[in-house]
Amino acid sequence: MSEIKNYITKNSPRFLEELFTLMRIPSVSSLKEHKDDMQKCARQYVVLLMEAGADRAEIYPTSGHPVVYAEKIIDPGKPTVLVYGHYDVQPVDPIELWKSPPFEPVIRDGAIYGRGANDDKGQSFMHVKAFEYLVSRNELPCNVKFLLEGEEEIGSPSLKEWAVQNKDMLACDVILVSDTTMISEEVPSINTGMRGLAYMEVKVTGPDKDLHSGHYGGAIANPINVLCGMIDQLIDKQGRITVKGFYDDVVELSPEDRAMLARAPFDLEQYKKSVGVGDVTGEAGYSTPERTGIRPCLDVNGIWGGYTGEGAKTVLPSYACAKISMRLVPNQDHKKIARLFAEHFKSLAPATVSVEVKEHHGGQGFLAPISSPMYKAAAKAVGQVYGIEPVPSRGGGSIPILAELEGILGASPLLMGFGLERDTIHSPNESYLLSQFYKGIESIILFYKYYHQG
Amino acid sequence: MSEIKNYITKNSPRFLEELFTLMRIPSVSSLKEHKDDMQKCARQYVVLLMEAGADRAEIYPTSGHPVVYAEKIIDPGKPTVLVYGHYDVQPVDPIELWKSPPFEPVIRDGAIYGRGANDDKGQSFMHVKAFEYLVSRNELPCNVKFLLEGEEEIGSPSLKEWAVQNKDMLACDVILVSDTTMISEEVPSINTGMRGLAYMEVKVTGPDKDLHSGHYGGAIANPINVLCGMIDQLIDKQGRITVKGFYDDVVELSPEDRAMLARAPFDLEQYKKSVGVGDVTGEAGYSTPERTGIRPCLDVNGIWGGYTGEGAKTVLPSYACAKISMRLVPNQDHKKIARLFAEHFKSLAPATVSVEVKEHHGGQGFLAPISSPMYKAAAKAVGQVYGIEPVPSRGGGSIPILAELEGILGASPLLMGFGLERDTIHSPNESYLLSQFYKGIESIILFYKYYHQG
Repeated sequence: MSEIKNYITKNSPRFLEELFTLMRIPSVSSLKEHKDDMQKCARQYVVLLMEAGADRAEIYPTSGHPVVYAEKIIDPGKPTVLVYGHYDVQPVDPIELWKSPPFEPVIRDGAIYGRGANDDKGQSFMHVKAFEYLVSRNELPCNVKFLLEGEEEIGSPSLKEWAVQNKDMLACDVILVSDTTMISEEVPSINTGMRGLAYMEVKVTGPDKDLHSGHYGGAIANPINVLCGMIDQLIDKQGRITVKGFYDDVVELSPEDRAMLARAPFDLEQYKKSVGVGDVTGEAGYSTPERTGIRPCLDVNGIWGGYTGEGAKTVLPSYACAKISMRLVPNQDHKKIARLFAEHFKSLAPATVSVEVKEHHGGQGFLAPISSPMYKAAAKAVGQVYGIEPVPSRGGGSIPILAELEGILGASPLLMGFGLERDTIHSPNESYLLSQFYKGIESIILFYKYYHQG
Repeated sequence: MSEIKNYITKNSPRFLEELFTLMRIPSVSSLKEHKDDMQKCARQYVVLLMEAGADRAEIYPTSGHPVVYAEKIIDPGKPTVLVYGHYDVQPVDPIELWKSPPFEPVIRDGAIYGRGANDDKGQSFMHVKAFEYLVSRNELPCNVKFLLEGEEEIGSPSLKEWAVQNKDMLACDVILVSDTTMISEEVPSINTGMRGLAYMEVKVTGPDKDLHSGHYGGAIANPINVLCGMIDQLIDKQGRITVKGFYDDVVELSPEDRAMLARAPFDLEQYKKSVGVGDVTGEAGYSTPERTGIRPCLDVNGIWGGYTGEGAKTVLPSYACAKISMRLVPNQDHKKIARLFAEHFKSLAPATVSVEVKEHHGGQGFLAPISSPMYKAAAKAVGQVYGIEPVPSRGGGSIPILAELEGILGASPLLMGFGLERDTIHSPNESYLLSQFYKGIESIILFYKYYHQG
C-alpha cells in the first residue's frame, strides 16, 4: 500500500468524524430559520482548516451568508491553487422519505448518508484532508487557498461582489472544484463543462379572491388551469423550448465533438431502471447524454395553487404559482434568457388573468479546456487511482458562480468531481460512497504533485 | 311593524349570540384534528333545538361525523317539513387573508363575519329561529323535523346510508333547505336546480425519487410538466370538456327555458368587477349565467408538486398531484362521469409516467318544479318580505345529498337560499348580511303559513 493510501486508511475514522461535525449542522441556505446554522457551520470549517494546517482561516461577512477563506502561502512566487466549495446544503423535504435523519450522518452499506454527504460537504472536505496530508509531510508543492461559500444552493447572490472586493487575496492559477459527478467508479470522468441556469418564479392571478367553484366554475378562468396551459406551451412536440430567441446563442457541437463525448459508455436500459421510468424524453435529434449535457432544457421545479390539504375543497383559487428553471449551455446568457422567458411567458397569458414573473438566480454555463496542464494533471492523478484513463464529460448541472470567478480572477476552473448519480444529491437519502471519498482524497493529493511537475 | 318583525328585532341580540356559539366551534369536517369539534358542534345544536321548542333532539352516530336530528310532531295527520342543513364548515386556509379570526365571529359593516356565517350555520340557524317563533306563538301549522349533518362539505359520505336506515323517522312532504344564494337583495330569487359534482384527485409519477434537475433535466420527463399538459387537454378551445362521452347525457335546455332564466337581471361589467377579473371565459355559445347555472364545467381545485418553499430548489420531482372537479347538470350521472374521467385522464398519459386517479366524492344535480305548492308558498313568502316577486334561478353549486334524499324519502327539496355572492363562502372573510339573516327568518315563518294554506 502506498504511503498516501496508508495515511488515508489509518486516519479515516477521524476524517469521517470531522466530516460528520460539519454534516450535523443544518446549513440550509434557502431557509431563514437556519441563519445561525450558517454561521455555526462556517466557524466549524475554520476550525477544521486551521487543524489541517492553514496559516490562517477566517469568516468573512458578505451581504448574505458568510464566506470561509483560508490559505497557506509557502512561496508567493509559486503557483496557487484556489479550492472552491460550499458549506451550504439543500432543504431536506420531503423529510418523510429519509431512512435516517438528514442531519444525523451515518455509514450504511459502504456509504455516508445525510444531507451534504456529497454536495458539497463531503466533496469539499476531501480537499481539506488532501491538504492536511501534504502539509503534514511537508510536501505541499504550491500555495493553497480555500474559498467556501454559504450560498451556492441559492445561486451565490453575494459571492461575486465579495470576490471582486477581495480579488487580490483570491489571486490564483487554477480554481479547483469537487462538486460534480463522474460517470461511474469503473468509468472515471472529469467534467469539462457545465450548463448555466436561469431560475424563474411565475404567479398567475385570476379573481381577486378564492371563489366557490360551484358558483363561478365555467365562467371565471381558473388560474391553475390557465397556468397549466401556459406551462404546456413552453415546450413543443419536438421537445424544443418555445421561448422566442431561446436558441439564438446556442452553439451546435461539431460532429467530432459529439463523437468524442459519445465515447463515454451509456446504457439506456440501466439509466431508465436507475430512476424507475418507463421511457426517456427530450429534444428530438439528440441522445440522452446529449440532452442532459450539451443541450438546454426547461423544468418546472415546483407548482402550487388552490387547496392541497387532505380531502376535497371546492375552490376556484385566486392564483397559482410555479418555479420554472432552464438549464443553459455555454454561450447562452442567463440574463438574456431570463428576460426572453419573462416576455414570452407574459405573452401567453389570456385576458382573464394577470401574470408576474421574477428571477430567482442564474448563471452562465462554461467549458474547461482539456488541453491545459491542469486538466492533464487531473487526468493523470485520477487515472492512477482508478487504474483507467478518465474520459472528459459534460455535466448537466450548474455552478453559476464558477463562470463569474473565472472572469474576476482570470483563472480557469477544474472540476474534479467524485460524486455518483446514486448519491441522489438534492433528494432524500443523499449519500457519498466511502470508496469515492477515499479515492477522491488520493486523487487530489496526486493532482498537486502532477500539477506542480507539469 | 308586524309581530314577526317585532319578535325578530327584539330577540336579535340573543339570536346572534346563539349563532355565535355554533360558529365558535371549528367544525371543519375535512380535517381529522377537528373530530372532537364535530361532536361539540352537534351537541350545541341539540341544545339550541331543544331550547327552540323541539319535542326531542338527538345526536345520531354514523360511520363518519354524527347527524343531529330533532322533531316536533303536532299531529301525525298533518304535513311534515324536513329542514335539511349542515353544521360542518370548510377549511379556513389561506388563514392569513382573514381580517378577523375565522372562529371568532364578529359583526362588521352590517354583516356577520366568520367561517360558517353563511354556509351553513348562519342559514340553517334561521330555520331554528323561525321554528322558535311559531312554537312560541303556538302557530306551528305542520310537523317539523330537522336533519343537520356534519359531512356536507366532504360530500356526505355517511348520510345516505343513515337516511336509508332512518327512512321512517325522516318521512316528510318537503325537504326545506337554506344553503344557497339569491341573486341580490333587490332581485330575490329561489333556486330551482343545482349542479352535480364529481371530485377527483390525480397523481402523475415520473422517476421513483426526486432528481437533480441539472443532472436529469432534458432527458427524464418532469411529472409537473406532464401533468400540466394533461390538464390543458381536458378543456378544448371552445371551452368544452374533452372527456369522452362527457356530454352524452346533458339535456340541452329549450329556447323557452333559456329565455325564462335570462329574465334574471345580470350585469357583466359588475360581475367582472365583483371578482376583479379582466374578462370572463367559458363554453362557446352560452351566456355567463348559463355557464355557471345550466352547463357543466371542470376546474382544478388544487395542484402541487416539487419544491414550493421560499427560494429556489433545482429539483426534478418524482410526482405531481391535482384535485380536479367537474360540476354536472341534471341527468349526468356522477359515477359514470367519474369513470369516464378516470379512463380519459389515464389515456392522456405518455409512456414516461404512471397515473393514479381516485374519486373524492360526487353527487347528482337536480331540478325543482316551480309549479308545486311548496315553490308557490316560498315565492309568496319571499315576495312579501322583499316587496318584489322572486325569480326562479339555477345555482351553480352542488348539494349532492339532496338528490339522494329526494330518492330515499320521496319528497322534493325546496331551496330557499338567502346567501349573496358577496358572502365569499369557502373563502377567507366569509360573511352573512344581518339584513338577509333577519329577512330569511321572516320569509321562513311566512313560508310555513302559506305552505299550510296552499
